[in-house]
Amino acid sequence: MQLTQAIRRAMQIHGGRTATIQGSRRRTWSEFGQRVASLAGALCEQRLSPNGRVALLALNSDRYLESFYAAIWAGGIVVPINSRFSVAEIVFCLNDCGAEILMVDDAFAPIAPDLRAQALGLRHVISIGEAHTAAYEELLAATAPVADAAHAGSDVVGIFYTGGTTGRSKGVMLTHTNLASMALNNTGAMSLDETAIYLHVAPMFHLADITMFVSVMQVAGTHVFIPRFDPQPVLRNIEEHRVTITMLVPTMIHALLDRMESCPADLTSFKAFLYGASPMPAPLIARAMAKLPHVNFYQGYGMTEAVPATILEPRFHTPGGAKLGSAGRATYFAEVKIVDPSDGEVPRGEVGEILIGGPMVMKGYWNQPKLTEDALRGGWMHTGDAGYMDEDGFLFVVDRLKDMIISGGENVYSAETENAIYQHPAVAMCAVIGIPHQEWGEQVHAIVLLKDGQRVTEEDLVAHCRKLIAGYKCPRSIEITKDPLPVSGVGKILKRQLRERYKTEPMRRARTF
Amino acid sequence: MQLTQAIRRAMQIHGGRTATIQGSRRRTWSEFGQRVASLAGALCEQRLSPNGRVALLALNSDRYLESFYAAIWAGGIVVPINSRFSVAEIVFCLNDCGAEILMVDDAFAPIAPDLRAQALGLRHVISIGEAHTAAYEELLAATAPVADAAHAGSDVVGIFYTGGTTGRSKGVMLTHTNLASMALNNTGAMSLDETAIYLHVAPMFHLADITMFVSVMQVAGTHVFIPRFDPQPVLRNIEEHRVTITMLVPTMIHALLDRMESCPADLTSFKAFLYGASPMPAPLIARAMAKLPHVNFYQGYGMTEAVPATILEPRFHTPGGAKLGSAGRATYFAEVKIVDPSDGEVPRGEVGEILIGGPMVMKGYWNQPKLTEDALRGGWMHTGDAGYMDEDGFLFVVDRLKDMIISGGENVYSAETENAIYQHPAVAMCAVIGIPHQEWGEQVHAIVLLKDGQRVTEEDLVAHCRKLIAGYKCPRSIEITKDPLPVSGVGKILKRQLRERYKTEPMRRARTF
Repeated sequence: MQLTQAIRRAMQIHGGRTATIQGSRRRTWSEFGQRVASLAGALCEQRLSPNGRVALLALNSDRYLESFYAAIWAGGIVVPINSRFSVAEIVFCLNDCGAEILMVDDAFAPIAPDLRAQALGLRHVISIGEAHTAAYEELLAATAPVADAAHAGSDVVGIFYTGGTTGRSKGVMLTHTNLASMALNNTGAMSLDETAIYLHVAPMFHLADITMFVSVMQVAGTHVFIPRFDPQPVLRNIEEHRVTITMLVPTMIHALLDRMESCPADLTSFKAFLYGASPMPAPLIARAMAKLPHVNFYQGYGMTEAVPATILEPRFHTPGGAKLGSAGRATYFAEVKIVDPSDGEVPRGEVGEILIGGPMVMKGYWNQPKLTEDALRGGWMHTGDAGYMDEDGFLFVVDRLKDMIISGGENVYSAETENAIYQHPAVAMCAVIGIPHQEWGEQVHAIVLLKDGQRVTEEDLVAHCRKLIAGYKCPRSIEITKDPLPVSGVGKILKRQLRERYKTEPMRRARTF
Repeated sequence: MQLTQAIRRAMQIHGGRTATIQGSRRRTWSEFGQRVASLAGALCEQRLSPNGRVALLALNSDRYLESFYAAIWAGGIVVPINSRFSVAEIVFCLNDCGAEILMVDDAFAPIAPDLRAQALGLRHVISIGEAHTAAYEELLAATAPVADAAHAGSDVVGIFYTGGTTGRSKGVMLTHTNLASMALNNTGAMSLDETAIYLHVAPMFHLADITMFVSVMQVAGTHVFIPRFDPQPVLRNIEEHRVTITMLVPTMIHALLDRMESCPADLTSFKAFLYGASPMPAPLIARAMAKLPHVNFYQGYGMTEAVPATILEPRFHTPGGAKLGSAGRATYFAEVKIVDPSDGEVPRGEVGEILIGGPMVMKGYWNQPKLTEDALRGGWMHTGDAGYMDEDGFLFVVDRLKDMIISGGENVYSAETENAIYQHPAVAMCAVIGIPHQEWGEQVHAIVLLKDGQRVTEEDLVAHCRKLIAGYKCPRSIEITKDPLPVSGVGKILKRQLRERYKTEPMRRARTF
C-alpha cells in the first residue's frame, strides 16, 4: 500500500475536479498532482537524503497538504510538528529526528532563523506562507517535477511527535500500510466517495485530522482549509463550500454549538462528522445530536500510535442509547482486548488496560528501541488507557490509566467525575485530577470554568455530583477558575500542566469539603 | 493485515449472529470461530508443516469456508482446486504445490484414492462431505482448538491455480495483504456491513467468489451456500434467506434471467450484485437492469493475479449510459495504465495492454520465478488484456490480447464481434475466435448456440452484424451448434478448446461467406 498512489488515481479519474479550496483559491487534482511533483523536485534539488526528514511547521492550508505529500513523493519522511509547541520543544523535535529541511508558513517564519541556529542538521528552510506566495510559486514553476520515490508498505511515511500530555514528546513512526489501512477503514465505515467535501478544522499535524485527510485523499474528495479552529469560520465554510464532513474534538463541538445559538448557519450540506481524541462528555454529545438531527455522528477511538482502533457508528447515536457512552467496536482490521497487568485478557465488563493490534499499529518510536519494545510487547500496542468491553464487544474507555485517581484504596476514573460535573448547566469546562493527600494517597480535585454570567458555588457543584455518582467519586476539593483550562493543539485538556501547578502551589484557590 | 483477524473480530462483536447458512444448518460466529480453531488443531495433529499446503477439492459449502480458514489458522497455505479439473489436472496441482493434506467433499471422495496414489507428497485426506458428517463432527469435537498461527502481511494465504483458459495452469500466490486490501476495497466501494447476507453462487475455489467472501468475512456478514450454480436454488435461497448480495458471471446472469421469466421469485431483499470474470454483452446487462430495477450493479475487472483492479459503480449503470460498456475506474488502491509493447503509456483512447499495480497484485507464480519476473516486470502486473482508458479514467476492456484476431492486417477484438452477435434475439451463447487463413493470416470465425426453438441462418447472422460493425469485424465463417459451448468452472467460455477443435477438424460444420 502506498499513500502517493491516491494522487495518481485522483489525477487519472478526477483530474478536473476540485482538490483543494483555500479561501478563493481552488486547485484541481491535475494541478495538485503536478504541484506535488514539482515541490518534490525542489526538495530533491536541496539534496534531500533518501528517507531524509522534512519538518512541517504551519497552520492548516492547501500548501500544508502539498508539502506533506511532496515530502513523501520525494522519498523523504514528513515530520508535522505541533504548532503549539514552544521554540525549545520544536528544536527538540528537529534535532531528535535530524530534520534536513523545514517548511514554515507566515505564523512561524519569525522563529525560523532561531530554529535554524539551534537545529544542527537543518540545511534549508522553505517558506510556504501567503506572504511568500510569489517566491513559492516561482520555486514550483522553476522546478522540474520528479517521479514518485514510490515508497510503500512498511516504509515510514512520517514521524509524528506525540502531544506531550503525558511526559516527554516521542516520535511515532507511521508507515504507508499504517495510514493506508486506516484510510480504507474510514472509507468503508463512513461510506466516503469522491463527493466528500472535507473541512480541515483540527490542526493538520495531528492524527485527528490526518486520519480523515488521508481517507479523503484516497477517495479523491475535496479539501477545504481554515488555518485553525474558530467557530465562525467553521460555520461560514460549511455553508459556503457545502462541506459534507469534518473531524471535531469535544472542546470544538462545545464552542461550535454555542456559536450556532447566536449565529445561525445553513448546515444542510453537512452530513457527518467524526469526533474523538479525548473523552466526550455525555451531555455534550446529547446536545450536539439535538442541534444537528440530520447529521451522522461517528466516534473514533485511538491514539497516534494506533488509529483508529474502534468506531461508534451513527446508528448507536440514539439519545439515551445504551451504547452512546461507548467508543464503539473494533474497526475492520483492528483487534482490541482488555488485559490485566500481566497482559492476560480479563472477563467482559471488567476494567483493564486497552491493547490494540492490527495494521494501524505504529512501526515504533523514532530512535527509542526500548520504549518501542515496551509499548509493543507481545505484538500489541499498550495504550495506557483503562477501559472495559461489554458483552457485545463495545469498548468503554474509562480513562487514561495515568488519569486514574486512587483515593483511599478506591479507583476513581476522572472521566466519570467530569461527566457528572458537566451535567450541571452552568459548567463550561472542567478537569478532574488527583492531588496528593497524606491520608488517602490522592484526593479527587476538580478545576471548573463556568459559562459566562453563571454563578454557582463549590458546594452546589458537590451537591450536584452527589446526586449522580458515589460519594468517593465526588470532588473533595474544587477550584472555580476564571481562566480557560490549558489545552493541547488538538483541544485536549493538559492535565499534566494542571497537576504540575498543584505541586508548586498546592490548593491555591480551592475549597475543600 | 491478517485474514484470520476477521474471525476474532466477528466472534468479539457479533458472536451470537449467524455466520453460515447451509440448508437448514446454521452456525453463529462463535461456533464458526471455535470450529475453525478445532479443525486447525486437526490439521496440526496431522503434522502440517509451517506453510504446508492444504488442498481443497469440493463444491460450495459451510465446511468449505471452515476448511479454507482452518488451513490458514493452522499456519498452512490453502490450495482451492478447480472443481472442473480432470483427475490429471488435479494431480498436476497437488504435485506442483506439494500438498500434504487434501480435503474433499462427497462429490470428489470417489477419486480421492486415485489422487492419493498419484500425488506423492499427500499424507492425509479429510472428508468434509455430508456423507461423512458423523466422522467430521467427531474429529472437530475430539480435537483441541489451537491458537492462530497469525500469519500476516506478505505471508502467502493461498495458491490459486488459474483456470487454464490460456495454457498450462499456474499457481498464483496471494498474500494476506493482497486479499485483505481487496476486502477493504470492496467493503468501501460497496458499503458492506454486518447486515450483508451473501449467497455463494460462483465456485468458492475461484477468485470471483473469494473476492466477495473475504469482504463478507471482514464485515461479519452472513454466508449462504449452494453447492453449485443452478438458477432455481439461487432464486429460492435469495427468497428464503433474504439474501442481499451476490457475485455472478455473465453466463449465470443469462440463465437466471431466463428462469425468472418462468418462475417468479421474491427478490425484494436483494440489494446488489457484483459481476465480472468475463466480458458482459451489452444486451445482457441492459436486460438485467430492466428486470431488476431495485438492484445496485457493480462490475469488477481483474484476474486471479490482481483483483479487483477496477470497479464500475451503480450510478454508471444507466440504460444506454456512456460508461456502461466500461469496466469502471481504478479501485482505491489500484493503479491501472495502458501501455504499448515496450511498456510506455499510450494516450487516452488508444488500445494497448492493461497493466495493474497496487497491493492486490500477487506475490508471484508458485515455483515459477521466470514467469513471475516476466508477468511482474517493472513492478506491474501484465494482464495480457487489451483495453483503453477514456478521458475520465474509465477502463474499457477490449479483449484478451491472445483473443485478438489479426485478419488481413486489421485487429479484430472478438468481444466486439460477440457483442454484435449477442444483440440478435435468437442467440443464446456465442464465441468468436481466429482460425488460420492462408491469405489473411486469420479469419474471424463465430460459433453460435441458438435459444431453444429459434431458427436463424448463418446468412441472417452475418447480415445482422453488418448493420452494427465494420465489415472486416464480421464473421467470415459461422458454425451454428446444438451443443453448449465449453465453459470453465466459473462460466468463462474456453476459447482455447474451441481453437484446438479447429486445428484438428477445420471448418467442420461451418458456413463460409
